[in-house]
Amino acid sequence: MFGVTILGNNSAIPTLDRHPTAQIVTCNDQLLLLDCGEGTQLQFAKYKIRRSKLRYIFISHLHGDHYFGLIGLLNTLNLMGRTEPLTIFGPGELQQILQIQLDVSGTAFRFELTYVTLEPGQAGIILEDKDLTVRCFPTEHRITCFGYSVELQKKKRKLLPDQAKAYEIPSAFYGKLQDGEDYLRKDGTLVKNDWVTLPPEKGKRYVYCADTIYDVNLIPHLRGADLVYHETTYLHVLEKQAAERFHTTTVQAATLAAAANAKRLLIGHFSSKYTELNFFLDETRPIFPNTDIAEEGVTFLV
Amino acid sequence: MFGVTILGNNSAIPTLDRHPTAQIVTCNDQLLLLDCGEGTQLQFAKYKIRRSKLRYIFISHLHGDHYFGLIGLLNTLNLMGRTEPLTIFGPGELQQILQIQLDVSGTAFRFELTYVTLEPGQAGIILEDKDLTVRCFPTEHRITCFGYSVELQKKKRKLLPDQAKAYEIPSAFYGKLQDGEDYLRKDGTLVKNDWVTLPPEKGKRYVYCADTIYDVNLIPHLRGADLVYHETTYLHVLEKQAAERFHTTTVQAATLAAAANAKRLLIGHFSSKYTELNFFLDETRPIFPNTDIAEEGVTFLV
Repeated sequence: MFGVTILGNNSAIPTLDRHPTAQIVTCNDQLLLLDCGEGTQLQFAKYKIRRSKLRYIFISHLHGDHYFGLIGLLNTLNLMGRTEPLTIFGPGELQQILQIQLDVSGTAFRFELTYVTLEPGQAGIILEDKDLTVRCFPTEHRITCFGYSVELQKKKRKLLPDQAKAYEIPSAFYGKLQDGEDYLRKDGTLVKNDWVTLPPEKGKRYVYCADTIYDVNLIPHLRGADLVYHETTYLHVLEKQAAERFHTTTVQAATLAAAANAKRLLIGHFSSKYTELNFFLDETRPIFPNTDIAEEGVTFLV
Repeated sequence: MFGVTILGNNSAIPTLDRHPTAQIVTCNDQLLLLDCGEGTQLQFAKYKIRRSKLRYIFISHLHGDHYFGLIGLLNTLNLMGRTEPLTIFGPGELQQILQIQLDVSGTAFRFELTYVTLEPGQAGIILEDKDLTVRCFPTEHRITCFGYSVELQKKKRKLLPDQAKAYEIPSAFYGKLQDGEDYLRKDGTLVKNDWVTLPPEKGKRYVYCADTIYDVNLIPHLRGADLVYHETTYLHVLEKQAAERFHTTTVQAATLAAAANAKRLLIGHFSSKYTELNFFLDETRPIFPNTDIAEEGVTFLV
């Protein structure tokens, strides 16, 4: 299972039915949290996210609508008895902000909390765990900001059934072939694994672009991604305002997804001024048809 | 109008229908906020609290369930264009915690924000504004913690109608008498105000005891209060656990309210383990009958 569950799709001012940014990425048995606006812990409860499976947290930048809920979530995990370690990736000052709040309350977590500080402009692999690879890349925002690319590799090699049959390999051994084993026939000849399998298919990739101005420099990071999340804080008519505030419009996000040949686009981080979100699809789909609203509570498979 | 609107009545771990501590005290045209747990700004929206009338914020202590929502609320007030000044009372480190978060996001509020730092153990008047007097007092908790007493004075003197008639003062002048003016009769004699009025009646008083262990030292602060909020994190059977965690039980809170001869008691800060709150009334009312659950969204007149 590789999917993205939206916990918040609103920009800075939360509303009663749209929350600040937070997304859960499910990578088989591990959960990743991308950003953590105020109230994220209640969204965990509302959408029955298994807190115990949360393993990594990635904060894009230190505007409050992307991290104000983090200290509360961590506190609750601790109060609920968590002992499994947790790693947070994000801008350096985040650790200081969390630590001062733990210090004044005399709180020491019972679980191990590791901070990985990202340096301004940093790009590349920041995590490899099991079948998972996470990369960060800088986005152009008012303050230091990172996007994240999450790739889930296929572990199993692709079986070529006709070849396997030709070598008279029993089907009970096919699982081992997919794991890369050779097959020793009864007559003593060895069937090399790569005669009957192909390398694992390419992994699937989700790219989260956080907050950003319209920026063609993002295209290499999005290229060919199976699922892209790109903010559309504003509709097209507010293009100038979007640029001034280092945000993006519908038309811009769709143009970027098309240019990068992405397979599917999720849009979010809507300004609180909009109550009707369908207009966002009306403006994106003519340019990039496979676009969806990052609707809260919905899980999008990568 | 002098009333208390409950925005949160739960202890540390919020649930979907019970929020961490926050209360609005309405003093005529001014709103005071007592504590500000995560999500308080959404409770403002849900219960249609007029943000523009908010003038003073009082934080009892720096456990997260009492202040994690403050930075988000302040940010939202700023984004919504607030220009009216705001004053925050609380422990000293609060200013540092807020400031670092403003600094990393490059935020400068458009409204004037004043911090009033309370020193550990401080007791006495901290605010006098119009008809309002606020006092703080220390409570015994795991970290420095303050309770707050809010008193709303009556401004109008009490008219003695029989006396006023005896001096042949026209009823159109009664309002001015209540404001303290003397009356000059047509024959030139002066009717002194205090011949026909009494001083304003005693103000009403709401006392918020924040988080605290069972502590008879609180009694002088509660004595005769019109409305007292006292935490009851636990039911009676967990008296030992309550003491260990510097919290209070039902029986203890009711005993204190009775000993202080308070007029009415609100209880809250319920442990998340409880889903049924009626048991809290079953244990308090036999000792202090005029007890109510601090139910979210409900306004209790002082």
